[in-house]
Amino acid sequence: MNPVVGILGGMGPGATVDAMQKLIRHTPARKDQEHIPMIAVSIPDIPDRTQCILNHSASPLKKMVEYMKILERAGATCIIIPCNTAHYWFDDLKRHTQLEMISIIDATCQQVAEQRVRHVAILATTATVRGEIYQHALAGQQVRCTLPTDEQQDAVMSSIYAYKAGDVAQARARLLPVVAALRQRGVEKIILGCTELPLILEPEAIAEPDAYLDATDALIRKTIAWYYQQVTHPPVAA
Amino acid sequence: MNPVVGILGGMGPGATVDAMQKLIRHTPARKDQEHIPMIAVSIPDIPDRTQCILNHSASPLKKMVEYMKILERAGATCIIIPCNTAHYWFDDLKRHTQLEMISIIDATCQQVAEQRVRHVAILATTATVRGEIYQHALAGQQVRCTLPTDEQQDAVMSSIYAYKAGDVAQARARLLPVVAALRQRGVEKIILGCTELPLILEPEAIAEPDAYLDATDALIRKTIAWYYQQVTHPPVAA
Repeated sequence: MNPVVGILGGMGPGATVDAMQKLIRHTPARKDQEHIPMIAVSIPDIPDRTQCILNHSASPLKKMVEYMKILERAGATCIIIPCNTAHYWFDDLKRHTQLEMISIIDATCQQVAEQRVRHVAILATTATVRGEIYQHALAGQQVRCTLPTDEQQDAVMSSIYAYKAGDVAQARARLLPVVAALRQRGVEKIILGCTELPLILEPEAIAEPDAYLDATDALIRKTIAWYYQQVTHPPVAA
Repeated sequence: MNPVVGILGGMGPGATVDAMQKLIRHTPARKDQEHIPMIAVSIPDIPDRTQCILNHSASPLKKMVEYMKILERAGATCIIIPCNTAHYWFDDLKRHTQLEMISIIDATCQQVAEQRVRHVAILATTATVRGEIYQHALAGQQVRCTLPTDEQQDAVMSSIYAYKAGDVAQARARLLPVVAALRQRGVEKIILGCTELPLILEPEAIAEPDAYLDATDALIRKTIAWYYQQVTHPPVAA
């Protein structure tokens, strides 16, 4: 079976497209036919992840499983999810598929380790921060994690919702003061641990790439490595 | 059945992502859940469309049908193809599906009519130009079609291949003189009739949106209209 990347998307749709674009840009292809095959399901009626974790509203798990099954039937051989908060259910999703799944959290923490970063700030949804998704994953790496204050975190969350609502100017106005404040607290890198954040902070990340660690980018680099591994060392059929 | 846009993509992958991004940007959604559901298959091993039409090399039809069937089984209720040249096989593809298909050529010509444009230049692959795909579609509309010279057309084609190979600077260097020459020939609008062209000419199209007619944009606007039509007036079950 040829390796095909399955993208469980729609959380949000803009982040799905950003992940696809990064996959294309980072692939050393000289013509269409050399690009990495991918199938993306972006059906965004999945219940809000943050609302579920913080306020116990409807769970997104059932829809995520349903759309992951579409990818499976369509021929995907690995699943990636360009949404950090959705990784709260990563192990639950894993139980529903035999396919390889690449975690955005693991991919990002791997880059923290490889780049020997000792002090990060975590910029993410309130659910990702309160659910301690990154703090747990980084616990074994002796990395200091700086978090926004409660007030700053509210600004981050409202920035993310503003972006999802199409208001880029508002999203930037809310987020930039928080970024400035975090950078004054001596962090080496700011983890952009929500897939909307690299979109909101695109100019800043282009101007100072070393100041940020883009989780989407980390996920995509690991996915591309997985793909070439599959192509050069295909798994032996069972 | 809920309407779901199926994107038969990978021709090329960058154009697929551009179409998805335009679909998101043009949708008046205030949160993830209000965005239009879409499924994209971007498996780019489809044989080169231009090579087939001009040099009778392998036909892309079989793979296009195969990937359209993936979209069908995945739950797509309409099919769009963000590749102008692939529309050479549009009627063949239509015979293989019961689903609604929205043509990028029809969508673009409809905009030519709606905007009462009388004189266009056609910027497209050599196969789209020689196959007279746009000239035929515009024949009934009394629109004058200006084409690049043979030498200019070679530059357009090499620009498109350069973009597909990831060399944006080369793609722009080849294309910009052709655009300048066409604009001196008194055309009202230049049809960007290859889905790579709006990507290569992004700065120019942003600076002077009225000078160009972006086929991808036309396709996406028609697709969004189709979606809201389905939502507000769902088809009666047979």
